[in-house]
Amino acid sequence: MADANTNMRLKLPITCFILEIILIILFGVLVEYDEETDAKKWHHSNHSQYDNDFYYRYPSFQDVHVMIFIGFGFLMTFLQRYGFSSVGFNFLIAAFALQWATLMQGFFHGMHGGKIHVGVESMINADFCTGSVLISFGAVLGKTSPVQLLVMAVFEVTLFAVNEFILLSILGTKDAGGSMTIHTFGAYFGLMVTRVLYRPNLDKSKHKNSSVYHSDLFAMIGTLYLWMFWPSFNSAITAHGDDQHRTALNTYYSLAACTLSTYAMSALTAHDGKLDMVHIQNAALAGGVAAGTAGEMMLTPFGSMIVGFLAGIISVLGYKYLSPILESKLKIQDTCGIHNLHGMPGVMGAIVGAVTASLATIEIYGNGMEEVFPDVADNKRTASYQGAIQAISLAVTLGFALVGGLLVGFIMKLPIFGAPSDASCFEDSIYWEVSSKKLLDTSKLCICPQPKKHCNYTVATNECLEM
Amino acid sequence: MADANTNMRLKLPITCFILEIILIILFGVLVEYDEETDAKKWHHSNHSQYDNDFYYRYPSFQDVHVMIFIGFGFLMTFLQRYGFSSVGFNFLIAAFALQWATLMQGFFHGMHGGKIHVGVESMINADFCTGSVLISFGAVLGKTSPVQLLVMAVFEVTLFAVNEFILLSILGTKDAGGSMTIHTFGAYFGLMVTRVLYRPNLDKSKHKNSSVYHSDLFAMIGTLYLWMFWPSFNSAITAHGDDQHRTALNTYYSLAACTLSTYAMSALTAHDGKLDMVHIQNAALAGGVAAGTAGEMMLTPFGSMIVGFLAGIISVLGYKYLSPILESKLKIQDTCGIHNLHGMPGVMGAIVGAVTASLATIEIYGNGMEEVFPDVADNKRTASYQGAIQAISLAVTLGFALVGGLLVGFIMKLPIFGAPSDASCFEDSIYWEVSSKKLLDTSKLCICPQPKKHCNYTVATNECLEM
Amino acid sequence: MADANTNMRLKLPITCFILEIILIILFGVLVEYDEETDAKKWHHSNHSQYDNDFYYRYPSFQDVHVMIFIGFGFLMTFLQRYGFSSVGFNFLIAAFALQWATLMQGFFHGMHGGKIHVGVESMINADFCTGSVLISFGAVLGKTSPVQLLVMAVFEVTLFAVNEFILLSILGTKDAGGSMTIHTFGAYFGLMVTRVLYRPNLDKSKHKNSSVYHSDLFAMIGTLYLWMFWPSFNSAITAHGDDQHRTALNTYYSLAACTLSTYAMSALTAHDGKLDMVHIQNAALAGGVAAGTAGEMMLTPFGSMIVGFLAGIISVLGYKYLSPILESKLKIQDTCGIHNLHGMPGVMGAIVGAVTASLATIEIYGNGMEEVFPDVADNKRTASYQGAIQAISLAVTLGFALVGGLLVGFIMKLPIFGAPSDASCFEDSIYWEVSSKKLLDTSKLCICPQPKKHCNYTVATNECLEM
Repeated sequence: MADANTNMRLKLPITCFILEIILIILFGVLVEYDEETDAKKWHHSNHSQYDNDFYYRYPSFQDVHVMIFIGFGFLMTFLQRYGFSSVGFNFLIAAFALQWATLMQGFFHGMHGGKIHVGVESMINADFCTGSVLISFGAVLGKTSPVQLLVMAVFEVTLFAVNEFILLSILGTKDAGGSMTIHTFGAYFGLMVTRVLYRPNLDKSKHKNSSVYHSDLFAMIGTLYLWMFWPSFNSAITAHGDDQHRTALNTYYSLAACTLSTYAMSALTAHDGKLDMVHIQNAALAGGVAAGTAGEMMLTPFGSMIVGFLAGIISVLGYKYLSPILESKLKIQDTCGIHNLHGMPGVMGAIVGAVTASLATIEIYGNGMEEVFPDVADNKRTASYQGAIQAISLAVTLGFALVGGLLVGFIMKLPIFGAPSDASCFEDSIYWEVSSKKLLDTSKLCICPQPKKHCNYTVATNECLEM
Repeated sequence: MADANTNMRLKLPITCFILEIILIILFGVLVEYDEETDAKKWHHSNHSQYDNDFYYRYPSFQDVHVMIFIGFGFLMTFLQRYGFSSVGFNFLIAAFALQWATLMQGFFHGMHGGKIHVGVESMINADFCTGSVLISFGAVLGKTSPVQLLVMAVFEVTLFAVNEFILLSILGTKDAGGSMTIHTFGAYFGLMVTRVLYRPNLDKSKHKNSSVYHSDLFAMIGTLYLWMFWPSFNSAITAHGDDQHRTALNTYYSLAACTLSTYAMSALTAHDGKLDMVHIQNAALAGGVAAGTAGEMMLTPFGSMIVGFLAGIISVLGYKYLSPILESKLKIQDTCGIHNLHGMPGVMGAIVGAVTASLATIEIYGNGMEEVFPDVADNKRTASYQGAIQAISLAVTLGFALVGGLLVGFIMKLPIFGAPSDASCFEDSIYWEVSSKKLLDTSKLCICPQPKKHCNYTVATNECLEM
Repeated sequence: MADANTNMRLKLPITCFILEIILIILFGVLVEYDEETDAKKWHHSNHSQYDNDFYYRYPSFQDVHVMIFIGFGFLMTFLQRYGFSSVGFNFLIAAFALQWATLMQGFFHGMHGGKIHVGVESMINADFCTGSVLISFGAVLGKTSPVQLLVMAVFEVTLFAVNEFILLSILGTKDAGGSMTIHTFGAYFGLMVTRVLYRPNLDKSKHKNSSVYHSDLFAMIGTLYLWMFWPSFNSAITAHGDDQHRTALNTYYSLAACTLSTYAMSALTAHDGKLDMVHIQNAALAGGVAAGTAGEMMLTPFGSMIVGFLAGIISVLGYKYLSPILESKLKIQDTCGIHNLHGMPGVMGAIVGAVTASLATIEIYGNGMEEVFPDVADNKRTASYQGAIQAISLAVTLGFALVGGLLVGFIMKLPIFGAPSDASCFEDSIYWEVSSKKLLDTSKLCICPQPKKHCNYTVATNECLEM
């Protein structure tokens, strides 16, 4: 498996060092503590230590942080021989992306006298932006080198920040949980990248593009942390008070309903009524994605449950029927099925958000309107206008994602970044030291499940695999 | 393993869809945001956003949430071939039960103008009730279909809510951490269910009713999350201030002491001094159960440690000596040994609570009496009367659990719900798609550990097992 | 493997029972609730329930708690056949150490009328002290019995408390995240212990002193929890307000930068450009250690990133080049490489703290100086004097650790505590019941990776290992 192309001896260190040194220099020039983290500024004003926003955002931040590193990282360990890369490259690109996102978002969210201010809110926003990159990672999982992924992160974070700026700052869109900015953007960006990187001969590594028993259990760790902490994700940067509280509650019910419809659809669509781990690991989360925009609104528990219920159904149907079509007809090889978990539920969440916004009235929101829809409360726009803006924002996001993914896909295709060969996709050992002692020769004992095919015994996964 | 009885193609989807649609309709009719989650109501009053109870309950809620989904889910993955079902059915029935519990508890805890109010407290309470169902799940683990489990959840949640209502609202019992309402109830309910579902020929799947190396490590993830977050569990719905603080502290010490006595007893009762993973995974948690009632009282760290110390001893002894007797004499097949982890420590916790309550004096509690024992503070009852009420509550709980479990067990026995055959218990592949590639035929190489027995090699777990 | 020496039938129960009974008696005599956990005392004063420190420290405590039990526990499961012991003995000695630390630290931190006061701060401090013991555990991992580890914990906790008292209370050193008190102390103490316990014939169990595929994934769970929650660790006991907020932020950036330099150095130092799981699992955490002292100071994000960046480089170089030298020349067998993760980064953190302290000015800190450097704010000492004190504290800590480790190493060497033989190191089955069914005899099929050596097939790990 020695392949000059994927040998990371120089490529990876050079990329990491250059990126980190640029980050450090830019942080030195541009970044300073905000009012709540600076010793002098905080103590200049007269307030209780307990008023510091740390106490009202940091627990949410830590939940989001767990979703980014454990949630996304372990969710992708379902592949039998790609666990190190799944969790390890997830770790690497997330650690890079959160630093780069701090700069990009800081730049667009408004500088303070030429300086970017950082605190717990910027930490949450940076983690959010990172989440978007990790969604795209799911589409190309197993088929890209870590250098390609870092290159993707550089550009995707930048485009994310531009799109987010247009939506939140220019259009006045509401999208606290990021159905559009995070999920729709990350998904369609990633799908376009994987389309550009299409591999006609990916069948060569097909036998490794599946799970084994224990890898599915590792993946469930990721699933459950995403599921449990999604209420914290959607509520992490909403307004304080009832807004955070309500968002968490709505998301909780949306996810619970989604889980039941996922199990139902998984059994229903299987030819023998057996549940499919792929559905459980992924579709059960669609309810969180779909509640990302409307979660902070007066969606009601009833509305949240309907949204989650439908999201689970759509997502399982996507895994079962749409993904194979996307691959065969549109040449979109989507390893983790992000279209079903983030793409369609993200679009659905945007639409639900637009409808819910257009139905907002002062009878329902009272003085709380000021915080959910400030422009409507100030009579700058009507609720239906807000709804229209929400719908336009979805179109803008799709445009940015598709065009951005197209361009960045071509950049990633440059041979210098070292993509693996078709036969060595979904394989840790091209990037990682894997114990060389695994050499039990039991190939003679291996009996193919399909008669008249040739199989080899793979010790590492203890399986008889078609070659 | 194709078995019409356990084919879930129609049974599971129909059950899930019917239940979820009923839930959605009832939520639409009955549920509305409470004062702290409703935009209008919250902004109607004049208070700081930071006064919202979200900030004082939500971190505890998230810890409890992790216990329910990761803690219980992974604790049960110790079985070699039942990891998907353990963590997956745990996920399914918990997602259902928390919705159903919101309705049942909301109904009994008091409606507001015909409406059930939801917020972070209802979320915690629903998770608590769900925990009770998951305890019962531990008794029948491996022997029931997901449809049976959902049926169990429907009835158990209902009975839980009735019992909780009688204790907390009618009798004025204190049981913040649920030694009685959650642990004693869930355990004896589950034990009665498994008694009714007794399988005389369970030996047929005996070889799968044990752990392998990595499945025990997965289970330790569950154990440790339960252990670490138990202080949050017991303190999640106590009064604010010193009560929550003290409850967390007491539970922390009880668990620490319990861990040492568990290790001691595990080594002491083994014939060769070797520790048994079953004890470590389970008995070390008994200290949390046993501090569930008295944790909020002035138990003192000293008292908490004694409670935990004894709970660990009782629990290991139960696993070692009592469980085999329960199985052989009383025909109670308790897969996870919930009697030792939740049953006996729950009863012990109830008794400790009764004694501690009866010793409460104004000298010890000062003005804090109002929050721990309001009826005593208001001179409506004496401390010893409160203690008697606590003891009566244990009897009531045991009655509800045993009679309820008996009835529900018979309902679950109806053939329509599809129980697995004796030979296919503790086996994921009857419910889940498990990779069909695992077909290495090494049966000829298999040498039985016990001479003169017949063994087959099982690739999935890499073991030579008696058939 | 039956070995009278490591048979824990009596040794372990006796040790656990004696220690726990002593703890319970001392807690009964010495410990009482503090102002915030006592019902009477808390309600005596007139304050809001929400002012209770529980709400401002407990979420940090729970993050630290996860680091201690899941983080350290799973980080050490990388060994192929020592997962039960790694996570299980970590659990045991942590549960003991946190109780003992409460007493020792309570004694030195100042008694209140002859009583030790406990609350969330004492819980965090006890967990911190426990962390130090677990660091030392990493050096001797696989080579010591649980009784030896408990003996080590008894003495190490005591010495930790003395050293911490000298630094924080006598010298007025600042070390909120414990670069000195926790990491430097724990590392050099552990290194000295393992030096004293040097085993010239450890080669006998060399084939078990390495990882397998899934054990490395379990270890990544530990790594990521340590990484994610390190900001909570460093900020858990700083002053409230901007101090906690800033410390979390600095640590977050230090870790992110450290991760990039770790990946870069791991690929750069490998002969074939492949990443080494050992580096990723450990060196990526060095940024948290190195920000332990200066994290609460006005280090700036820029400074934090430089510190993390360098810590990652130093740590990987240590694993690659220094550890083999320490073993061959100095006879220090450091199983987990704690010198590279806690030792050198801890010393670096102490130096960074000394330099940062000496540069403190009122222009930078404003009125916040009072909380970060109270003696400087009160003009009792200059900033450069504070810096000198910080440097002296490092020397004191190193002295305590080295002399303490030397003495305690000799105590641990007493045969009564039952160390494993050289051939049975890194092996769970001498302490734990491990399924006796794992007896597939495929030794004939085993082909050594190295020609002309003798190999045996190990079923449990599915590998062909040199014997």
